Amino acid sequence: MIRNEVFSCFVFYAVLLVTKMYVIAIITGQVRLRKKAFANPEDAMRHGGLQFHREDPYVERCRRAHLNDLENILPFLFLGAIYSLTGPSLTVARVHFLVFFLGRLLHSAAYLFALPAPTRSVAYSVAQMPCISMAVQILISVAVYA
Amino acid sequence: MIRNEVFSCFVFYAVLLVTKMYVIAIITGQVRLRKKAFANPEDAMRHGGLQFHREDPYVERCRRAHLNDLENILPFLFLGAIYSLTGPSLTVARVHFLVFFLGRLLHSAAYLFALPAPTRSVAYSVAQMPCISMAVQILISVAVYA
Amino acid sequence: MIRNEVFSCFVFYAVLLVTKMYVIAIITGQVRLRKKAFANPEDAMRHGGLQFHREDPYVERCRRAHLNDLENILPFLFLGAIYSLTGPSLTVARVHFLVFFLGRLLHSAAYLFALPAPTRSVAYSVAQMPCISMAVQILISVAVYA
Repeated sequence: MIRNEVFSCFVFYAVLLVTKMYVIAIITGQVRLRKKAFANPEDAMRHGGLQFHREDPYVERCRRAHLNDLENILPFLFLGAIYSLTGPSLTVARVHFLVFFLGRLLHSAAYLFALPAPTRSVAYSVAQMPCISMAVQILISVAVYA
Repeated sequence: MIRNEVFSCFVFYAVLLVTKMYVIAIITGQVRLRKKAFANPEDAMRHGGLQFHREDPYVERCRRAHLNDLENILPFLFLGAIYSLTGPSLTVARVHFLVFFLGRLLHSAAYLFALPAPTRSVAYSVAQMPCISMAVQILISVAVYA
Repeated sequence: MIRNEVFSCFVFYAVLLVTKMYVIAIITGQVRLRKKAFANPEDAMRHGGLQFHREDPYVERCRRAHLNDLENILPFLFLGAIYSLTGPSLTVARVHFLVFFLGRLLHSAAYLFALPAPTRSVAYSVAQMPCISMAVQILISVAVYA
């Protein structure tokens, strides 16, 4: 499976996107420390006192970016893996993965830098297109068995 | 793998459920536009001004429905795939997938239409049963190797 | 695949972690009932009235623990599966899975019992180490194809 070219191509972009999600988690933690805004009283106690058990608009922005990744990148990990097994051409598959990858990179950048609307929505919509295409192709592949 | 009947049956329901999650995301976006309630100031600016950077109870309801899907449908994508590889009978497997599928459809409907309690909790519990059954069967299958 | 020793070892810990996530969901529900703090008006109505449609600090703590699991355990389900297919030695692989497993157990305990900082952050960081190691090894494996 790992020697299948399409599957390996998918894995490459998928792992980069998982790494990107981890980076957003690290950024969130760093912003919490810098802004002194902690979700838990025990964290606030360690960093100066209970007054820092509070919300911060930029921390919330990071959390929304992360949650949106969970909503979109995690389903891609499933769809991309299954789609790779349906025997698509490497070129067509690579376009699917690359459009999703670039769309999600732009989405994160648009979120973290608060780029003017509709940059973020456009990035989200562009990245959804290969996902819907993969979902349809998978359903066609398995419909005969289901 | 994709030619395995049980696996294909799983993939069929799994992709429909991923699509259902995407639909909830689209509904959330449409409700935000209709109710003029945006999570980000840059979105509010584009749609009439910063006063629309606000929460709305129905938007929050859509978000809870979506989050509950992440908590339940995403683990199913894993459990169902592994369970399919343990060699269950097609009929038994299909019952597992179908119960989960119908339970999660009812859960979304109960959430979005705010059906009286305990409709939503019952739907959640019914959908968890095949998941627990699959988890137990997988653990039995791999226990000899672990 | 299910007869591959490394893959089976991965599946064993992965399914235990999914079960752990389900337990956190059950705990959250029980705390909501005990504290009478419901996210939905229809649930509050069933349990005494709309005044119980409210937030509770401990319910929010449970929800943060659950969300952190989504952010970390779900990507592990992907990374661990792919890593198992890259042909690592069983001993090295088992160390990866076990460190992640124990780190996430400690993370949940630290969250639910509000253990003093930095217990929870240390548990999170320890559990991230095998994930980063797996991500790097996967990227090296597939780089020739991507």
